[in-house]
Amino acid sequence: MLISESALRIFTQNIFLAMGCSDEHAALSADVLIKADLRGIDSHGVARLVGYVRLWEKKRINTKPNITIVHQTPTTATVDGDAGLGLVVAPFAMRLAIEKAEKYGSGWVSVRNSNHFGIAGYHSLMAVEKDMIGFAMTNASPLVAPTFSNERLLGTNPMCYAFPAGKYPPVVVDMATSAAANGKLEIAQRSGKQVLEGWIQDADGKITTDPHALKSGGSLLPLGSDREHGSHKGFGLSATVDILSAVLSGANYGPWVPPFVSFLEPPSDPVGLGIGHFVGAMRVDGFRPVDEFKANMDNWISRFKSASTVDPNQKVIIPGEPELEAEADRTKNGIPIVDAVWDDLLGLAEKFDCRLSPY
Amino acid sequence: MLISESALRIFTQNIFLAMGCSDEHAALSADVLIKADLRGIDSHGVARLVGYVRLWEKKRINTKPNITIVHQTPTTATVDGDAGLGLVVAPFAMRLAIEKAEKYGSGWVSVRNSNHFGIAGYHSLMAVEKDMIGFAMTNASPLVAPTFSNERLLGTNPMCYAFPAGKYPPVVVDMATSAAANGKLEIAQRSGKQVLEGWIQDADGKITTDPHALKSGGSLLPLGSDREHGSHKGFGLSATVDILSAVLSGANYGPWVPPFVSFLEPPSDPVGLGIGHFVGAMRVDGFRPVDEFKANMDNWISRFKSASTVDPNQKVIIPGEPELEAEADRTKNGIPIVDAVWDDLLGLAEKFDCRLSPY
Repeated sequence: MLISESALRIFTQNIFLAMGCSDEHAALSADVLIKADLRGIDSHGVARLVGYVRLWEKKRINTKPNITIVHQTPTTATVDGDAGLGLVVAPFAMRLAIEKAEKYGSGWVSVRNSNHFGIAGYHSLMAVEKDMIGFAMTNASPLVAPTFSNERLLGTNPMCYAFPAGKYPPVVVDMATSAAANGKLEIAQRSGKQVLEGWIQDADGKITTDPHALKSGGSLLPLGSDREHGSHKGFGLSATVDILSAVLSGANYGPWVPPFVSFLEPPSDPVGLGIGHFVGAMRVDGFRPVDEFKANMDNWISRFKSASTVDPNQKVIIPGEPELEAEADRTKNGIPIVDAVWDDLLGLAEKFDCRLSPY
Repeated sequence: MLISESALRIFTQNIFLAMGCSDEHAALSADVLIKADLRGIDSHGVARLVGYVRLWEKKRINTKPNITIVHQTPTTATVDGDAGLGLVVAPFAMRLAIEKAEKYGSGWVSVRNSNHFGIAGYHSLMAVEKDMIGFAMTNASPLVAPTFSNERLLGTNPMCYAFPAGKYPPVVVDMATSAAANGKLEIAQRSGKQVLEGWIQDADGKITTDPHALKSGGSLLPLGSDREHGSHKGFGLSATVDILSAVLSGANYGPWVPPFVSFLEPPSDPVGLGIGHFVGAMRVDGFRPVDEFKANMDNWISRFKSASTVDPNQKVIIPGEPELEAEADRTKNGIPIVDAVWDDLLGLAEKFDCRLSPY
């Protein structure tokens, strides 16, 4: 099913309005989700809308949050999201980081009491628009086992770094710190295919290629896959995201992070409030003139784009490039929605009496 | 060969003094190197001393640098290391970041015109001593190929994040962004052993287990090893280090980073000055009271330390723990030096007429 950006945006806004969001929050939440669909990160777009609705129905998402700054210095702050949608809490935090950077050169905000914030790239790119370098990360419900363990203690905990360039588009490094994204497992589960060795282990910590192992107590592996290929580095990166996002803000961390799905209850012994994010912005001109930086970014990008490749038909991919190509294509030609998600959206259309029509 | 910390420190200081360093710079440079040896990171300790001497003899290291701040805001700065030892330039930059953090909550310094800075953990831990979170990264001479390429365009570009804890020692994530460290290759080369698949490729980009492939045009692989296991993430992290350290400061980046060895000449078409680093410090109490943060860090560490493991004899390792255990052991029992390094040190002792004796 293909649907135009504008039709999907209006529908998504209307669902958020029906959940009780303000006009501003509904528009912003829809913008974050639609941006994911446009950029080809389908797992983080409107596919998640029904999940947000179910968590709201269980009163685990507050659609009228009073987002507050609970602690701050000129360049640092902790924000309490009041159990609001991460889709509005994270942009609030990033706007605050940008304001601080405008005055003092940089700004850093740790966030507690939030929910799933969509794609990290959305938030980092807010800084890039102001000729700043953007940082965004979030912890997430536990699916990943640390090196040597067979317990799920960490989320796929993404980190994102975004850099403005000149004639080229921004460089956007936006990555889960696990070897494989959970979305890839779900695709394999649906299609009945095996997955690669190095993505997951079973409940006993044995290597497996069965994508269903995750549902029977198995876990995703950190980036690096095993100790000899650096899984302790993936674990270390994931730990860094968890600490900056949650230990620093007072959110839940590690195995205490509440699940994103309504059919699993949050831990009964929380160590903090909701989930945590960490965002930051640094003014490029806090280090060197913007035009100099951009000229060197262009040279960097140009050199890597023209690198010799193993397969002459496969060029080196600059981080952020595939997402930008998807965005250009989907803005023009519409957003493809898989059947299962389309059925979910039709269900929401009926529940909330909102119009939904394909392209 | 075992040597006591104090004997090795005095010897190393004397070599730096003989190279023309000030008393302060000689003591600091020795401290950074000895810290690496104490922490068990032998590849970054006194094993590098002879390399520094050779680069100094070639006038590629300035032992009397005039380190300057060339650009700044209240919380950001660019430092020019005047071709000095990274061992003194990086601590200068970190002290500046800490000063800014003391006043404004955070401080971030990008560095150009520097040289090899030793272990990243040394610099990050300077912030931890002040109850701050420490960041340190550096670019390095090109050995790593981006995903899909067979060209060496990036260094092993390490990143380090360090967090203070309460009753436990600090959590220190200090990692190369390549799948394997170059040091592991050198060990395999010396012992005539094959290496694991996923560490390196040959000059054509083919998978190989021959450690000598690196010397005949092959390259190290980014963390993740191949595209299907996330090597584009390792590439993205390495790119992030390169951009923050060098594109932001005006140092050389990518394939233009000058080699650390005296027998290879720097590129004749530099795009900047020397190599680049990036360091930062954030006050923990810029986000929440220090005692609250430390109590939660202790709980985080305690939970991960007690995680269920695949092999009951192999516990989960907290990042930084092995280095701390090595430090306790070597401080007490002395620092082991392999024969090849000992011979190098004896050569330096003779050249500069400095006393060197084992434990």
